[in-house]
Amino acid sequence: MPIVELHLLEGYDPEDKQRLGAALTDAVTLVVPALPEAVTVMIHEMPTDQYYRGGEQRSGAAALPDPAKVVRQYLQSMEARDLPTAQALVGDGFMMQFPGADPMTKLSELIAWAKPRYQSVTKTYEGFDVVASGGTVVYCRGTLSGVWPDGTPFDGIRFIDRFELQSGKITRQDVWNDIAEFRSAP
Amino acid sequence: MPIVELHLLEGYDPEDKQRLGAALTDAVTLVVPALPEAVTVMIHEMPTDQYYRGGEQRSGAAALPDPAKVVRQYLQSMEARDLPTAQALVGDGFMMQFPGADPMTKLSELIAWAKPRYQSVTKTYEGFDVVASGGTVVYCRGTLSGVWPDGTPFDGIRFIDRFELQSGKITRQDVWNDIAEFRSAP
Amino acid sequence: MPIVELHLLEGYDPEDKQRLGAALTDAVTLVVPALPEAVTVMIHEMPTDQYYRGGEQRSGAAALPDPAKVVRQYLQSMEARDLPTAQALVGDGFMMQFPGADPMTKLSELIAWAKPRYQSVTKTYEGFDVVASGGTVVYCRGTLSGVWPDGTPFDGIRFIDRFELQSGKITRQDVWNDIAEFRSAP
Amino acid sequence: MPIVELHLLEGYDPEDKQRLGAALTDAVTLVVPALPEAVTVMIHEMPTDQYYRGGEQRSGAAALPDPAKVVRQYLQSMEARDLPTAQALVGDGFMMQFPGADPMTKLSELIAWAKPRYQSVTKTYEGFDVVASGGTVVYCRGTLSGVWPDGTPFDGIRFIDRFELQSGKITRQDVWNDIAEFRSAP
Amino acid sequence: MPIVELHLLEGYDPEDKQRLGAALTDAVTLVVPALPEAVTVMIHEMPTDQYYRGGEQRSGAAALPDPAKVVRQYLQSMEARDLPTAQALVGDGFMMQFPGADPMTKLSELIAWAKPRYQSVTKTYEGFDVVASGGTVVYCRGTLSGVWPDGTPFDGIRFIDRFELQSGKITRQDVWNDIAEFRSAP
Amino acid sequence: MPIVELHLLEGYDPEDKQRLGAALTDAVTLVVPALPEAVTVMIHEMPTDQYYRGGEQRSGAAALPDPAKVVRQYLQSMEARDLPTAQALVGDGFMMQFPGADPMTKLSELIAWAKPRYQSVTKTYEGFDVVASGGTVVYCRGTLSGVWPDGTPFDGIRFIDRFELQSGKITRQDVWNDIAEFRSAP
Repeated sequence: MPIVELHLLEGYDPEDKQRLGAALTDAVTLVVPALPEAVTVMIHEMPTDQYYRGGEQRSGAAALPDPAKVVRQYLQSMEARDLPTAQALVGDGFMMQFPGADPMTKLSELIAWAKPRYQSVTKTYEGFDVVASGGTVVYCRGTLSGVWPDGTPFDGIRFIDRFELQSGKITRQDVWNDIAEFRSAP
Repeated sequence: MPIVELHLLEGYDPEDKQRLGAALTDAVTLVVPALPEAVTVMIHEMPTDQYYRGGEQRSGAAALPDPAKVVRQYLQSMEARDLPTAQALVGDGFMMQFPGADPMTKLSELIAWAKPRYQSVTKTYEGFDVVASGGTVVYCRGTLSGVWPDGTPFDGIRFIDRFELQSGKITRQDVWNDIAEFRSAP
Repeated sequence: MPIVELHLLEGYDPEDKQRLGAALTDAVTLVVPALPEAVTVMIHEMPTDQYYRGGEQRSGAAALPDPAKVVRQYLQSMEARDLPTAQALVGDGFMMQFPGADPMTKLSELIAWAKPRYQSVTKTYEGFDVVASGGTVVYCRGTLSGVWPDGTPFDGIRFIDRFELQSGKITRQDVWNDIAEFRSAP
Repeated sequence: MPIVELHLLEGYDPEDKQRLGAALTDAVTLVVPALPEAVTVMIHEMPTDQYYRGGEQRSGAAALPDPAKVVRQYLQSMEARDLPTAQALVGDGFMMQFPGADPMTKLSELIAWAKPRYQSVTKTYEGFDVVASGGTVVYCRGTLSGVWPDGTPFDGIRFIDRFELQSGKITRQDVWNDIAEFRSAP
Repeated sequence: MPIVELHLLEGYDPEDKQRLGAALTDAVTLVVPALPEAVTVMIHEMPTDQYYRGGEQRSGAAALPDPAKVVRQYLQSMEARDLPTAQALVGDGFMMQFPGADPMTKLSELIAWAKPRYQSVTKTYEGFDVVASGGTVVYCRGTLSGVWPDGTPFDGIRFIDRFELQSGKITRQDVWNDIAEFRSAP
Repeated sequence: MPIVELHLLEGYDPEDKQRLGAALTDAVTLVVPALPEAVTVMIHEMPTDQYYRGGEQRSGAAALPDPAKVVRQYLQSMEARDLPTAQALVGDGFMMQFPGADPMTKLSELIAWAKPRYQSVTKTYEGFDVVASGGTVVYCRGTLSGVWPDGTPFDGIRFIDRFELQSGKITRQDVWNDIAEFRSAP
């Protein structure tokens, strides 16, 4: 039964508004025990000549990219070893923390570090979660499959990645998985 | 500059409204590149005699508990081996997935499984993230410290837990950590 | 899905607001093919120091009485031949139009007119409809039962009454029924 | 002084909105003793990409036809004995209740029943009232004129019809009039 | 932090809305100790088919001209002795009150009165203030420069003019200045 | 017909809200050619737990004093030569500009300057105008009466004062009047 009204300068496309509609609905259901179907969101867009702060017109800023899409594209580029595309998605001060490794800041470092650990690896996704928490945080989880250095295949190894984004760019990646668990199994 | 208005049946205490204010602000900043300070949230509470659906009065439901608090209390109870308190926080169909273990459904199972793996373990938290995504999801991450079965201490082992909640109760816990990484290190 | 907000000076009791909630819901469903359950009404009441017209505070007026209740009370008083109570419910310029009678303006006239037509009559109600249409109009329909002048009983005779009200008082009553149909039946 | 805001998915034409504006004004004046001129109605239409329920876009449904127009068209068709047009305006489960007749369900039944009662009949309307009351109810009243079976003309006979509509179709017609009163008069 | 919403029939151009945005912001800051930057104004324009009073559509009226512009144009026309243009800006019942003069009602009177007092005069503006106070009042102040009848120049003489406007036309001008102060100085 | 809604943190007393209601009405009538009676203002006050910026509660600030009252009290104190009261109403950087005088910054300076100019002076007010224009500006105008140094009385001398206020304190006073005009008259 809760009703949300969002007043916004115009300039957002239908997909942006869809994301706002969903995110505001989710926000309400964190506290109010209503089914999502019971939450209504109305977005009121205003042309610039109908919005004033300090008595002056203001312009709306372009929407941030969908953070889950940014992360998905980054992970695909890394799997495909397409470093230029991946690099374009990371921001200043980027760092990565992988299990059993020192923090890394360059994508090429990660490629070098991974080389002796597996010949190839592919992610099967079970889900993405997006949180605003200071900046934006994206969680993605699922299972890894691939080929060990000795040529034997593996799959079904659980993983979870946590990404921090600022202004639409990835600034941090933290990775947890069960690779060591597998390797240490008898 | 975005302005959010939430219309709600009355019956929420200030802490609930604070959580709504923060969650709605976060939701907007996922799409609109505004600083949180530029997002205004107004909550309009209505007494039951001012809200009608189908021409009839409706009652507001009690707020859901803060999911981060539920998870924190659960983790504390488990660390303290206070199973009755922890049990009261889990819901129907509860299951746990730990690294290198089969899925478990009883808290006592987990205690038994952990016994040969470490004498004790304590969590130091770096952060909690809460997402509405179907039900509610809570992520908590940080480092583990404790004592191995042979009496040697450990600390600084990274972990992340993912909890699913339904109607305020924990229904699923997924755990990832670097314990195997540590044990498998030479 | 339609949402109605009504801004009103305070001073209405819960029953008045219930009537407003229902009437506004009805109004929407005349045009929008939504189930009543899909129509939300929010009533925003304002204390006098929060409402200004021409820069000056205004006071709210007392609610009009429920017109269906006024009519029901009038009809009960007339059945019970309690003319003072009935008289208090009629307003200036009151007139009545009964089948086969000239227009009447005094309740006592009606009593006199009815006397040779039946010993007694009782109304069984099937429904009341209330319309705002200039002033307020109340329809009530159902069946008549009673005793003819010759002592034989009757029942199941269809009737419909139409009442006009101004400022909460009845100013006109139009009556249709099947009494003549019955009497003229062989 | 009351102010009504209606939030609606777009897709209604100016005439629909005019009907909503009038119906909402009427609804308020049933309870609040304000002149219609003191009631303001603002209709806020939203494109589909600005309205979300359950985080998903919804589409507005086409407006219901003006029930008074439907009834007027039905009555005209019946007077003109244009049964196909009249039939297209009635819905499932249609029934009619005329004075001194058993309930009828087919328009042709009514024509047959009326044949021995009058050669022709025309309605002069004094007013239509429209109510939402579960479904939609239309009252129309006025006087009948026409020609008796024996060729003598009549006029000024009071009538009132009550119509129930569901989803824009007539599902019930109840008729009261003074025909028997006239015929039984000496 | 205050937020103003203005609901208005459409028909105002961006400059009119800019003036409304500024005037509403100013109005708030007279009472609330907020910086103008903390005041948000949202103007909601409604097409005529979305606004009803008394259940009927209403049309918006054309905006009043910017009163500061009207006054500025009047003063420029008077300085240029362009009486037809100035005359077009004054309304019924116009009167002027200058220091040391009887009230005047005709622009030509003023020209005649001024002739022996200075050869020419030019206004340098320091500021305009606009107030709604019954009708509209415009204050303009600054300094006068020009040439005395004897050919000597002057400048820096303070003046203030107060104008009353009704329906966009000037109906009264009151003038104060330090000319006498100057002339009476030794 | 314009409708203004003001959303405000609670903490304003009825007189403050009255001033807001009037000022917002005035603001609208500067642009929209509506009678003040056609302008509705609704003030929505929010308790602090219903208003969030940056996801955090904010407190409302105390209302600014009525600037016309501040000016009136200042002028009365000065007439009564009650310098401590007047001084308490002026703010940092206060300055005064009187006809034929250098700018003054101290109230005692003004008293000294006025001494040889008149024995006493009293203001009769014709009107106050208040404008928000950067800070707040108050105009007051009317006529002066009093006694010249030689003991002869005077009255009916036109004056206008312009006051600037910052945060409720007077920071500047500009005075124009016809005293020199009178003195220079033959």
